[in-house]
Amino acid sequence: MQRAAVIMAGGGGTRFWPISRMAAPKQLVKLTGDDVMINETIKHYDHVIGRENTFIVTNEKQAQLMDKVLFDEVDRSHILIEPVQRNTAPCIIYAAMTLKKMYGDALMAVLPADHHIGNIKEYERVINLALDTAEKTDRIVTIGIKPTFPSTGYGYINFSSEASVGTEVYDLLKFVEKPNYDVAKEYVDSGRYLWNSGMFIWKVSVILDYFKKLLPDMYASMEAIFDQLRTPDETKAIEATYPNLEKISVDYGIMEKAEGVYVIPADFGWNDVGSWDSLDNVFTGDSANNIVVGDKTNSILEGCTNTVVFDAVGDKYIAGVGLENSVIVQTKDAILVLNKDKAQDVKKIVDALKESGREDLL
Amino acid sequence: MQRAAVIMAGGGGTRFWPISRMAAPKQLVKLTGDDVMINETIKHYDHVIGRENTFIVTNEKQAQLMDKVLFDEVDRSHILIEPVQRNTAPCIIYAAMTLKKMYGDALMAVLPADHHIGNIKEYERVINLALDTAEKTDRIVTIGIKPTFPSTGYGYINFSSEASVGTEVYDLLKFVEKPNYDVAKEYVDSGRYLWNSGMFIWKVSVILDYFKKLLPDMYASMEAIFDQLRTPDETKAIEATYPNLEKISVDYGIMEKAEGVYVIPADFGWNDVGSWDSLDNVFTGDSANNIVVGDKTNSILEGCTNTVVFDAVGDKYIAGVGLENSVIVQTKDAILVLNKDKAQDVKKIVDALKESGREDLL
Repeated sequence: MQRAAVIMAGGGGTRFWPISRMAAPKQLVKLTGDDVMINETIKHYDHVIGRENTFIVTNEKQAQLMDKVLFDEVDRSHILIEPVQRNTAPCIIYAAMTLKKMYGDALMAVLPADHHIGNIKEYERVINLALDTAEKTDRIVTIGIKPTFPSTGYGYINFSSEASVGTEVYDLLKFVEKPNYDVAKEYVDSGRYLWNSGMFIWKVSVILDYFKKLLPDMYASMEAIFDQLRTPDETKAIEATYPNLEKISVDYGIMEKAEGVYVIPADFGWNDVGSWDSLDNVFTGDSANNIVVGDKTNSILEGCTNTVVFDAVGDKYIAGVGLENSVIVQTKDAILVLNKDKAQDVKKIVDALKESGREDLL
Repeated sequence: MQRAAVIMAGGGGTRFWPISRMAAPKQLVKLTGDDVMINETIKHYDHVIGRENTFIVTNEKQAQLMDKVLFDEVDRSHILIEPVQRNTAPCIIYAAMTLKKMYGDALMAVLPADHHIGNIKEYERVINLALDTAEKTDRIVTIGIKPTFPSTGYGYINFSSEASVGTEVYDLLKFVEKPNYDVAKEYVDSGRYLWNSGMFIWKVSVILDYFKKLLPDMYASMEAIFDQLRTPDETKAIEATYPNLEKISVDYGIMEKAEGVYVIPADFGWNDVGSWDSLDNVFTGDSANNIVVGDKTNSILEGCTNTVVFDAVGDKYIAGVGLENSVIVQTKDAILVLNKDKAQDVKKIVDALKESGREDLL
């Protein structure tokens, strides 16, 4: 069956300021690899889906940027443009209807634009297993990450104690919201909880049936313009229809209500690279656990430990003295110095810049 | 009697990298005031000596830079150029001989190029008192700073319990080297010790007599070229003589051996601005004790305490998040991020840059 990867890439990513900007969010910058994150993502499933079968749902502004950074192998007609942002359910039905129009039916993998994968071989194997399972069983398949610590930053998935298909595919019992630390610790200790990676695999026909049943208005609106999809009238039809679609996430609108969802517990060095402190889990530090990303001759860390230099431009020389647990970021127009324990507060910088009208820095 | 200020300005100042450089050391940069430090210094005694009576002893490289930064009122013929650096005794005899040639005799105040003075009025008053005392008594007068904490970074001066002249001029009993903390604490608690400020006031005739007696070879060498001073032959004569002068400090060569030295205990908000952490004592912080030097609209400190931003150029926006006790410095070509407790280690950065041949950053 035809396979397709759908990447939802509409987000802003303020937690990686000053690297990520409104115009160039996280997925469009080089953060953990040799290429921009969205290309790193596409590379990851080259052998199971193929970059030529990649679809991206994004907004107009980012689409223009993507045109510059994407592999030539990614068909530009595979970039679906949302006229307004309507959360993930509209985004997914748009992609699913597009695939239905193109292929009748297809295996569709919804994959993140901006996560780091440490073990590509294992990732490919798991995605392949998920695609095979979705094809054979007509079920929704999701991938849960085996937790390595009691994170309070992720949603969790509770799964069955016995595999339902083969040895690796389990019944998904329930989704749970981000827990507090004590609850997270219980989850991790129990061995029956996984991190929700936001990766979903299904047949187009299966997910569209769920939409018809669980989000019937949205389904009807999109079905009404099905004939215009992949025609010169598509843009006009989408622009008329999209703003009226319900703002709802696929997690809340479909996943939490769907029955018989499968989950594959996985361990492929996943990291959602959610904020500056998560680079520690992606790069290997030196003997003092310091990490330099960028031109390594352009900085010096004297008596520093557990410190990251992220040098995106290399124009000003960077010297750190006596720092602990810190991040120094240099871009063309900004310098960020961060205590890793406060990595979430980078958002406050972005908020303050908005308030003070510094559009040039956003 | 003619009064003259002599500023010794030959030093490098690696502890303020990246602001201070080999070519532009501390005294030639704006650090604590509206102007470069040497001009701030000259301003300080406008009312007691006058900037037109300022003499500067420096090297060729810095002399060229000074020509650009100095007040127009400072006579360019008052810049005395050392062909090689020979410590402070040669520097002072060169200046003293010059003043003798120009004025026969004069009151000479040796003042630092790069110290911060918080209370100018009081400083002027003390310098004036020192000049008057030197004039009336033919003694060497030095200024000791009333210690505010048991510093291990300064030499100390032990002084008599009773004033010898008026109510403020004491006998200097002895100079002592930088002590360890316990000793420093004893000194401060005793009330009989002062910090050695390196400010000396004397008559030219008096200090030259000391040279004749205590450093007779140096005296003879300089006396031999006395006729050439202030003539077109001066440069040639100095270049021939200077390299042969003994490398010795005025403290060791004269001061510690001189008898009958007076000291004036003083308190005029003195700070030698020795390293990045000393800016705390010069500037007043905000409610979180943060200090921004430079364009205040070009940085933001979110959840930071006791942190300094020193922005010499303002081209890249600076954001600090969750920092404590830190210094961020931006210059045209470098960024320094420093834990204040390690302020002395900035020197190691300079050493490392030297070793790796980064002359462009020195």
